This record gives sequence, structure tokens and C-alpha cells, in this order.
Amino acid sequence: MLTDIEIAQATKARPITEIADVAGVPREYLELYGNTKAKVDYNLLRDSQHEDGKLVLVTAINPTPAGEGKTTTTVGLADAMNLIGKKTVVALREPSLGPVFGIKGGAAGGGYAQVIPMEDINLHFTGDFHAIGAANNLLAALLDAHIHNGNELDIDTRRITWKRVVDMNDRQLRHVVDGLGGKANGVPREDGFDITVASEVMAIFCLATSITDLKERLGRIVVGYSHAGEPVTAHQLHAEGAMAALLKDALKPNLVQTLEGTPAFIHGGPFANIAHGCNSIMATRMAMALGDYCITEAGFGADLGAEKFLDIKCRLTGLKPDAVVVVATVRALKNHGGVPKDQLNDENLEALEAGLPNLLQHVENITKVYKLPCVVAINAFPTDTKAELDLVEAKCKELGVNVALSEVWAQGGKGGTALAEEVVRLCEQPNDFSFSYELEGGIADKIRTLAKRIYRADDVDFTAAAKKEIAELERLGFADMPVCMAKTQYSFSDDASLLGAPRGFRMTVRNVKVSAGAGFIVALTGSIMTMPGLGKRPAAFNIDVDETGKITGLF
Amino acid sequence: MLTDIEIAQATKARPITEIADVAGVPREYLELYGNTKAKVDYNLLRDSQHEDGKLVLVTAINPTPAGEGKTTTTVGLADAMNLIGKKTVVALREPSLGPVFGIKGGAAGGGYAQVIPMEDINLHFTGDFHAIGAANNLLAALLDAHIHNGNELDIDTRRITWKRVVDMNDRQLRHVVDGLGGKANGVPREDGFDITVASEVMAIFCLATSITDLKERLGRIVVGYSHAGEPVTAHQLHAEGAMAALLKDALKPNLVQTLEGTPAFIHGGPFANIAHGCNSIMATRMAMALGDYCITEAGFGADLGAEKFLDIKCRLTGLKPDAVVVVATVRALKNHGGVPKDQLNDENLEALEAGLPNLLQHVENITKVYKLPCVVAINAFPTDTKAELDLVEAKCKELGVNVALSEVWAQGGKGGTALAEEVVRLCEQPNDFSFSYELEGGIADKIRTLAKRIYRADDVDFTAAAKKEIAELERLGFADMPVCMAKTQYSFSDDASLLGAPRGFRMTVRNVKVSAGAGFIVALTGSIMTMPGLGKRPAAFNIDVDETGKITGLF
Repeated sequence: MLTDIEIAQATKARPITEIADVAGVPREYLELYGNTKAKVDYNLLRDSQHEDGKLVLVTAINPTPAGEGKTTTTVGLADAMNLIGKKTVVALREPSLGPVFGIKGGAAGGGYAQVIPMEDINLHFTGDFHAIGAANNLLAALLDAHIHNGNELDIDTRRITWKRVVDMNDRQLRHVVDGLGGKANGVPREDGFDITVASEVMAIFCLATSITDLKERLGRIVVGYSHAGEPVTAHQLHAEGAMAALLKDALKPNLVQTLEGTPAFIHGGPFANIAHGCNSIMATRMAMALGDYCITEAGFGADLGAEKFLDIKCRLTGLKPDAVVVVATVRALKNHGGVPKDQLNDENLEALEAGLPNLLQHVENITKVYKLPCVVAINAFPTDTKAELDLVEAKCKELGVNVALSEVWAQGGKGGTALAEEVVRLCEQPNDFSFSYELEGGIADKIRTLAKRIYRADDVDFTAAAKKEIAELERLGFADMPVCMAKTQYSFSDDASLLGAPRGFRMTVRNVKVSAGAGFIVALTGSIMTMPGLGKRPAAFNIDVDETGKITGLF
Repeated sequence: MLTDIEIAQATKARPITEIADVAGVPREYLELYGNTKAKVDYNLLRDSQHEDGKLVLVTAINPTPAGEGKTTTTVGLADAMNLIGKKTVVALREPSLGPVFGIKGGAAGGGYAQVIPMEDINLHFTGDFHAIGAANNLLAALLDAHIHNGNELDIDTRRITWKRVVDMNDRQLRHVVDGLGGKANGVPREDGFDITVASEVMAIFCLATSITDLKERLGRIVVGYSHAGEPVTAHQLHAEGAMAALLKDALKPNLVQTLEGTPAFIHGGPFANIAHGCNSIMATRMAMALGDYCITEAGFGADLGAEKFLDIKCRLTGLKPDAVVVVATVRALKNHGGVPKDQLNDENLEALEAGLPNLLQHVENITKVYKLPCVVAINAFPTDTKAELDLVEAKCKELGVNVALSEVWAQGGKGGTALAEEVVRLCEQPNDFSFSYELEGGIADKIRTLAKRIYRADDVDFTAAAKKEIAELERLGFADMPVCMAKTQYSFSDDASLLGAPRGFRMTVRNVKVSAGAGFIVALTGSIMTMPGLGKRPAAFNIDVDETGKITGLF
């Protein structure tokens, strides 16, 4: 069996100018980055006369070690849509370098449903994440230079919330003391680094609708607090102009292609816990402007990814989705039904049925809470038995849930035509899209509403620290923002071990902070890792390049 | 008077494909980065039948606060060469983001002798420095992950020499303690960050002649020492393959254009103190392959820049230069002659004459030590008087020194034709290029020879620490490498206040270390700043971008 990189490298990519022609990007808006990548000037959105295409979100059940194949399904579905004659463009997140060298390998789909050039997409790509890191770190340097040079804003060095970032898995940098070495070398303080995708600049970048909006958001970033307890912003540090200058090219969506030549925008990639986990609004809008259909995805399972796509991204940018695909695999459902990782290859109808409630709760949230048409995509794996696939299909139909088998991993677009037909059908249905909570009301109320409606928690407890933080943020005028829940992706609850569709649980919100530039309140239900580490034998050990520039060892 | 960025933005750049045609780059070797930048595949060097063009180095007197205009002269000379019918290509260093946001502003020439697009060149450009930073930081993450995961190589955490980097002026990171936060978060140790241009990966990148050579050099990097005192290399950490994968696109030289359409390669930019201060060998070779003349430059004054270009870069890569241009300005010579910065606009023939020995010693080094043809370029400033310009010319002629006035800052190429004619004449002369020291002999001997011949020091003293380090490096087999002197750029001596052509001084070498991957020994004569800081009103405060993507506030 060929690996993903072997399949990708065996495919001759078409010149990106041809893909741009397919998509309908006029040449003057196209900036080539080599022969198979391009940036598209965001001014095309302003300048072109177009009707927006339909917006389809691909989400999934709660992730398991078995893998779900959300990106694979997104890519394969788009290829299938084009196969059945519907002009479709994909919008995806960019991968982070950290996991590439850590354990995950590449992140550009899999099998015969991939975006290419996968090596480039996984390694720097067009440099967007480096630009985001540089903007983040310029703000940090300006902040510490301000303190070093007299601290006119009276910043409390014990209450600085802005961290530096690197796009690398580097646990050594999680907790540091910097500014050491005497008077000429800064002011000693506790500090720490995050991975670039965890930067608020990343979240801002993905929500910004123009350069002006970008600058305003950057200026609103709260970097810490003064001794008097007042927030200190990036604007007070005169940072937003230079930060935006660093981001001006990055803000243009990146155009590449799937293995079957479907135009794909890959742009931005914030965390799906402390941030909203979706590709940039620029990329989504561009895909909708150019395609009759835009297929996009959101991070983690639907309780985090789809929830934030709908309650944060759609709300803040005015998007209205037309249909939602919930991806599941037989193996992952068996895991939710209690089968350990090493026994997932064995047929187990009982466990499969026991795992189904996880899928069904996600579907119910989409159809009943968000009031959107929904289809389940069963992403076929080679080890699935016919009895297992039949069982999932039968159970879904029994409950009136739309379902389609997707074989895009093994077959590319032609393995996804049944799913594509169903998506087209759903997009024709009118929908009454609603949010899971309204913006009015206190921060705690919004968190409670969300937790009860989407997670099915009995109630939410707030620690003393969280209560104090909420009171403070409401005093500072941040009460009316949407909430961004940072919780484990493995469970509907805040306990990673509660698989399936847990009931009878309470959640605990431990800390609450503001991402004022992004425009949301982050509620943390536990300690969220914002800087991964490398293991004893990281993926980097296997990655190599030869004299012709050919990369090996990326998965 | 227009600013540099106003002049640059008023010039309509030609499509880079046209510039590539002018240069003779076949389309299949060209990778576009937008419409005015491109990378050229290094395999063109291997594949094409070509005779190498003449190699001309532009260097300068010891820098002063008055400015010398080395890059301006390099760019203007190349434009002038093309004006007089000589096919010429420029090779320059890439600017670092740190100084752009600090105090220096842009670094792409000035006036009517600039490379464009200057905003892009100063901001990320094609991402090379980010790639170098990522490769540097991947090695650091692998190193600390190795220690965290059991430390099989028994690395002494007190003797780690490898630092992380950011491309930012950030003094807060000079001295840190990292790995804090308990057992799961690394191993606490003293550490620090450099600016990206100070990374040994940058020096390696600029000396690598192929991917294979790059990987071998990366593998030889010494990251620290074991408790037994043996060096630990990047190869032992399995790092070089993944590092090279990160660098594979960066290694392709970047093609842009001057304001007059001369092809310019801008690629790589190591420090000129702790490293060799020249653009990449790939870019120099590419410019020589495509042009009948390649005009290139080296960092700081000729005692550091030209010395390292000749003794390190040419020696390690087999280049043979044909002529050298030494740039001086009337203002800078007056500063060397004792005039303080605020009085440099006043005519002062006495001080000018007193400053001339600095220029003449550089010329003598080029002609007598390196045995290369040399011409002095007087880079004209608006405040220069005719009497001053005449004096420099007369004194040079009196001593048999070739000299030409260069007015490229004000006039572009047509202000440099006299200099260009002289350069062409010098390139026709045969030369007996020699190094200032031979590789054989101990490290201390080489440093002494260099210091006496180039700086005119009476002798060199070595601290006890330096003596011990030299003995250790010689024991480890590094005796036969060239030496890279890290000293102040402002004086021939190791005392920044000794201007002109000091005599009767001794130098002190305080520390000696190896850059085993780059292939040189670094001798430090004092503390060299490898991480700048931001001032109270950094240049970043003025930088902005508007809705059309137009950058302002870059100088």
C-alpha cells in the first residue's frame, strides 16, 4: 500500500495558473509562489461581481486514536462534487510545523483525497505562520522594550498575558524566566512560549475581513494589566501598524489543488480549544465567491469545531451555512463504544452500536440546536466489515438521520459521489440557522447555555478564580462577546475519559480570559497544552531531502 | 527630497520574468514569488554550460555614524556597468527583520541606487530567514527533547553552545532560564536567544554548495559537550535531514531587480563579526554564471568584510576575485579624522586628510596582502564640497591609488560610469590573489598573522580562557580551519574608539569557539552583541500598511 506522500508525489500537479483558471481567478489577482502555489489578492472579493456559493461544513464525532479522516472527507467530497458537475472549491486550515516534526506528520488529507504539493503545504508553505509568529513576537519585543525603557504605562510584570511563540514543539520553552543578565538586558520576569497556532494573532488573522479590520483587532489585543488593574493594549504600544505590515501578504489566501485538480484554499489554522479552529474568513469567502459550493472544515469534533464555526466564526462574519457533514468511522465508533485501540480491527457490532450515541448527539445538535441540514459521512476503512457498515447505515435511517458511505480515501472523488449527491440535496433545503446561545446576558450564562445545549452537562461550576475573572472582564466591558470553550476534544464533557454520549455530569470552568482582538472570551475547563513537546523518536528523525529537492519521511 | 521608499514606490517594477530573461534564466528554473520576486533553482548551476563572469567585491572603510553607502554603491555600480554595455548581475545580502523594526530601517540601497520591491525585501522577502530560524530552532528542540527523554549522549547542560533564535530585536531573550515548571516541562538550565542572522545555520546556508554539502555541514554543528568533554553534534541528534528539508527552498537564490532593471540576487545574510558576513555562495555563483560581471559586497569595513570574503568565503568555495572597490565618503573620512558627528556637514580639509589613512590602509591590504586590483569609490553626499572631493582624489592619485567619484545615490547608474570604466579596466589586469594567512599552523598563529598583516597590531594577547579553548579545539581536530575574527567594526583594532589607522596597539582575544558546520574558528576580542534591543521609539512605531497593501514608514 502506498503512503500518502508516495501517492502525492506520484501525481503530476497541474500549473497553478490552470487551477486559477478553473476557479475563475483573474490573472491580475494571482501571485505565484513557485509553480503549484499562489496567493490570491483579497481585493478580488471587493472588486468582483459574484453571488456567493453554498457553504458546507465538514465536522466529525469526538476524535479517537482511531482517526476520523475529516480533512480526507472534505477534500474527497469536493472532488466528488466537481465529478457530479457542481463547481466546488475547498477551504482548509494550514498545518503547523510543530506536529510535522513531532508525531502527527503531514496534515493535507490522506490516500487519494489529498491536497498537493503536500510537502510544501507541510513545510513553511507560503510563510503565513512565520509572518504570524513574527507579528506576535514583535508585539512581545515592543512590550518588553516599553518596560525596559521606563514603563510609562506602569505595566505589572506579574500580570503580562502576552507570550512569545515558535512554530515548533518545544517543551523547554513552556516556562521560562527571561530578562536576566543585569540592567542592560531587560527586566526579569516569569514568561513562557506557545506554539504559533496558539497565538491570538492567528485567531485574529483568521477572522479579519480587511486590512483595516485586521489593524483594529490587533490594536485591541490585551497584552497584560497595569498595577492599577487596567488592561494594556497593543494599540497603546503603537504595535498594530507594524504588525499588520508583517501580515499584509500572509492575509491573501493560498490557492493549491487537490489530487484531482479541485481548487483548494489553505489558509490560517488556529487552535480549536483556546481559539476557534477554522481556516481564515478570507479563504472561506474566496471559496464561496469562486465556487457554487464551498466545502470547509473545523477542528476537532463538532462539539468544539462546528460549535465555534457556527457560534463564533459565522456570527462574527455573517456567514450562513447551507449544510453540515458529520464524519464518523466504524473504528472510532467502536472506540466510543468501549473497544481499546489495539482491538479496533476486529468486527464488534455490539460496541459499534454502543458508540453510536456520540455520533447521534452531534447530529442532533446540528439539526435541532443550529437548525441546519445534516448528513453523516461514514469514512470507510479497509478493515470495516459489511455488517458493520450496514449497521451504522441502518441505525441512522431508523432515526431519520441522513447517511452516506464515503470511500474517498481509497478511490478519490468517485468514492464520494453518493455523499456529494446528498450534500447537493441538503443545500437545496431552506434552513433556519440559529446560534446555540445569544450574546446578551453575562459570560457565565452563555457558558451554561452552551454546556447544557451542546454538551448536555447538568450544570457548570465556576472556580473562585473564574468567578473573579468573569466579574473583572464584565467590568471591563467584555460581557457581550461569544465564548470560546477550551476543553478536551475527546469527550462532550470536560473529562477526556467519558466517551460516547455522557449524561449526568457537571463541568468546571477554571479560568476565563479575553482574546479582545479576536473578539471572544476563552473559558478554560482544565489545563490546555499550548506548547507541545517532542518525544524520544520524533518524526523529524525520518525526514530527509535529496539533491533534487525531493522530501522523504513525511506522512 | 524624496525618501528611499518614495523613490522605490514611484518606480514601476518590471515583471520578474522579464528580468529573468535579461539575466538568461531559463523559465523552467524560475519559481515566481509574486510578480516581482523569484527563486532560481540552484540546479541551473550544474545544468548550464557557462563561463564564469568576473567577480568584483565592494567593501568599505571602517563604518562610522556618517554612513558609507556600500550597498548603494554596489547597486549603482552594477547599473552603471550595464549602462556602459557590460552584462552585470548583483549579489547582495538579505536584510534582517530586527533592524527594520529597530533603528536601521530598510537595507536595500538608497536614493536612485536601490533594489526593489524594497518593502518586500525588508519584510520576510521569500521567507529564507524564517526557514533558517526554524531549522535552528528545530535543532534546539531536538537537543532539549534528547536531554528531557533520558540524555543518552550524557550532554552537560552547563556546556550547551546552541541557542534558539528569533528574527527580532529582543533584549529580553538574551539571558533566560528555561525548562522550568517541573518534571514534565524539560530540564532547567541557563540559556539565551540570538537574532536569526547570528545563527550558525545562517553561515552554513551561505557557504553550502549543494543540498548534500548543506546536510553534511549541518550534521557537523557542535551543539555542546558531554560530561566527558566530547563535542555533541547535530548528526548525533539525527537533525540534519529535517533541517535540510526546512531549508531546501530557501537555498534557491532570490532574483529581484534594481531601480534600473539590473538583475539582483539577494540571498543570505550572516553577521560580519561572529560569521563571515557575505551573501550566499549560491547567489554569487549564480550571478557569475549569468553575468559577465558579478558585483557583490561584504559586511562592515574591509578589515572584517573583505578579509572574510577573501580568507573564508573565497578559500572555502574556490572563488577568485578580479577587482575590489573600497567605498568611502568625505563625511566618514572626516569622522575618522576626528570630527564629531554633528559637525560633519562643515568643510574641513584638515580633518579629511587626517582621516585618509584609514582608507589607505584598507587599499594597501587589498593590493599588497591580497594582491588584488583595487579602486576607491568616493560616494558623493550632497554636503560634500568640491575642495573636499578634489583633496581625496588628489591624495589618492599622489599615492598611486585608483579612485573614482560615484554619484549613484543622486543619479543612479549614470552617476557611476567613471567607476564602472575603472572596474572594467582593473578586471582586465591579471592578479596573483593570495590569502592573508595559510591554514596550516596553530589557531593562535593564524590569528597573530591576520592581526599583524591586516589590522597592523603589534601583537595579540590571549586570555587564559582563550588559551585553554584553543588547546581544546586543536585537540578535537579543528586546528586547520580559517579564523573568523569577531571584533568591533569601527576600528582596525579591538578598541572602537581608535579611528583612522591606529599603530602601536595590542589586541586581546578573550574567547575562541568553533563553528564546525560553517567550517571556521571564531575568535572573540570582546563581547559581541548577538541580540540587539529596541529603543524607546523604535522604527516599528512608524511602520504602517493601508487597505491597498501599501507600506509606509520604512526607510
